[in-house]
Amino acid sequence: MAGQTNNRFDRWATPGVRGLQPYQPGKPIDELQREYGIDEVIKLASNENPLGPSPVVAETLAASVAELSRYPDGNGFALKQALAAHHRLNSAQITLGNGSSDVLEFVVRAFVQPGDEVLFAEYAFAMYPLVTLAAGGTPVAAPARDWGHDPEAMLAAITPRTKVVFVANPNNPTGTWLSDDELQAFLEAVPEHIVVAVDEAYFDYASDPALGAPDYPDASRWLSRYPNLMVTRTFSKVYGLAGLRVGYALSHPDLADLLNRVRPPFNVNSQALAAAEAALADQAHVSRSVILNVEEMARVTDGVTEMGLEFIPSVGNFVSVEVGDSAAAVYDALLREGVIVRPLANYGMPRHLRVTLGLPAENERFLGALRRALKA
Amino acid sequence: MAGQTNNRFDRWATPGVRGLQPYQPGKPIDELQREYGIDEVIKLASNENPLGPSPVVAETLAASVAELSRYPDGNGFALKQALAAHHRLNSAQITLGNGSSDVLEFVVRAFVQPGDEVLFAEYAFAMYPLVTLAAGGTPVAAPARDWGHDPEAMLAAITPRTKVVFVANPNNPTGTWLSDDELQAFLEAVPEHIVVAVDEAYFDYASDPALGAPDYPDASRWLSRYPNLMVTRTFSKVYGLAGLRVGYALSHPDLADLLNRVRPPFNVNSQALAAAEAALADQAHVSRSVILNVEEMARVTDGVTEMGLEFIPSVGNFVSVEVGDSAAAVYDALLREGVIVRPLANYGMPRHLRVTLGLPAENERFLGALRRALKA
Repeated sequence: MAGQTNNRFDRWATPGVRGLQPYQPGKPIDELQREYGIDEVIKLASNENPLGPSPVVAETLAASVAELSRYPDGNGFALKQALAAHHRLNSAQITLGNGSSDVLEFVVRAFVQPGDEVLFAEYAFAMYPLVTLAAGGTPVAAPARDWGHDPEAMLAAITPRTKVVFVANPNNPTGTWLSDDELQAFLEAVPEHIVVAVDEAYFDYASDPALGAPDYPDASRWLSRYPNLMVTRTFSKVYGLAGLRVGYALSHPDLADLLNRVRPPFNVNSQALAAAEAALADQAHVSRSVILNVEEMARVTDGVTEMGLEFIPSVGNFVSVEVGDSAAAVYDALLREGVIVRPLANYGMPRHLRVTLGLPAENERFLGALRRALKA
Repeated sequence: MAGQTNNRFDRWATPGVRGLQPYQPGKPIDELQREYGIDEVIKLASNENPLGPSPVVAETLAASVAELSRYPDGNGFALKQALAAHHRLNSAQITLGNGSSDVLEFVVRAFVQPGDEVLFAEYAFAMYPLVTLAAGGTPVAAPARDWGHDPEAMLAAITPRTKVVFVANPNNPTGTWLSDDELQAFLEAVPEHIVVAVDEAYFDYASDPALGAPDYPDASRWLSRYPNLMVTRTFSKVYGLAGLRVGYALSHPDLADLLNRVRPPFNVNSQALAAAEAALADQAHVSRSVILNVEEMARVTDGVTEMGLEFIPSVGNFVSVEVGDSAAAVYDALLREGVIVRPLANYGMPRHLRVTLGLPAENERFLGALRRALKA
């Protein structure tokens, strides 16, 4: 990811930042509208909840507009109290992030110096190597097994310089997961001075028995056993609040203390704090969202199977479909029909496209557009 | 700021993070209400706009609630277009931050490695040393002159390890400023490989002629002359949007490119982007806020002068008053009357309290409470 540029400041930048390429998000709807002149765009590219957030969020936000001129509560007192009750943990075990990716940056900045290594699996979330490089660390990707994490390969990749291990469970963009037994055995084997960050952004989808992962673990129940474990969750996925940026880590209080030292004092804004607290209280909305996801996973995987395509079995709200050598052309053809999905070439998966499960009509439109693109 | 703790993870953390003490924000209103059981609390502690944001902001936010489930535009296209037009610069010269303090972190993370130095003035904003330490850098504070920046002392403090210089203009918490001539001479003298970050959080207050600083410069007009200059501004002060966290840097496009490499992709959330754009369009609200500030600066400085107190002449929306040896006790006495100001002991100014200029009635209440506290 590093390389030569013509930037006059590159030579004075830290080595990790020289030539660093920023994260490429899913294409925004209005960008496609501007570029292609298409009105009716659907975005199935960023694993957002197609139902949106709980309806109580809008009321909460309207009520908190009067407080906009005040700095947010830098300690996030109310939201942390609510999260502590939800998880049956202590507030001192919670670190709030501007999205869970913020907390993933904190752990790298707290522990990684130039020369240190950060370990993750091949095909894992693109932010892991980026935040590692930015901190001057060395990203190490352990080989995958059937597109998923291979715990043995990861353990074998640990060196004396390893400081942080990221485990995405389930993984994005593959939707694969480690079972309860596999993950606990892994935690047991990692030395206590290495922080293991288990990224559970898709927890509520993956932990629903109907989606087919009865052995999917809630890593937070091991927090008292492994002080070097942190578990991250987010309000960006099933809670439908991607626009507001709220995530958090659950950990040992000492680890939370360190993460909070590198946390900027007002990283989560006041609207985000209020909305997250309201969204957390509406678990019925979470259930509705998960039920829809189960139904739509069947629709989309049946649909692509009918087209003769293979997909990676997923417990998330997305599925990666093996489109083949023409994946880039298919992605473009879908864009021209106003359907945004996610190309995966930058994940080392150039033959796959990842599609987020949307509303029934959106998924039907995706399937129709995909069928036409494959025939073209 | 570093020291020994009992935290089990400290020995594995980066040296700069070991014993790091997080930034202490102004006490939130509801925290005082919880702790002291006082209902009628006024907060004059965080240099917030007592008029709040433009009334158009609330309408804009209500209209954008439908987009909460979508990730923000990671490029901030619309807000950057509006800022570019406002400043008559190019969008490629803008880096958006989750508050301007976010951008100040970016410059340190982009350029500072362990052993490198970051220079600023004594009594300058507390975030400068904190972000430096967190990145493993060495904070260097040049001696002040009459509470303000001393450009000669700062130039003399530059070493071969200096990578970034922070110049707060005006400075917080003192309200002092460098004149047009002083600042340009300083920029001229700093070597081109050192980034000079001029923090103009209080620009709109300081550039109002009625407040008494006709020689206060707009550093952004030197951007084409000094490629190593960056100028930061914020929506947290005169725009009344501290709760939403939006700031930005103006710089050479190459420098902006580097800052954007370390910028997290969704650091400014969608409500914040929309609100900032709306607030920027209402310059009449900015003018009303600045006019009020001029009137209230006279009220508060006259009031404390009548009590026989000295204050540091300020061009911001706050003033630091020399209360004397009993400043900590006076701060507590004010709290018990429900008036929150800012103690400055952690800025090396234990005899001063900083008060934000509020609404007329709030300032009268502060003056009354201060009078009683001094007599106690």
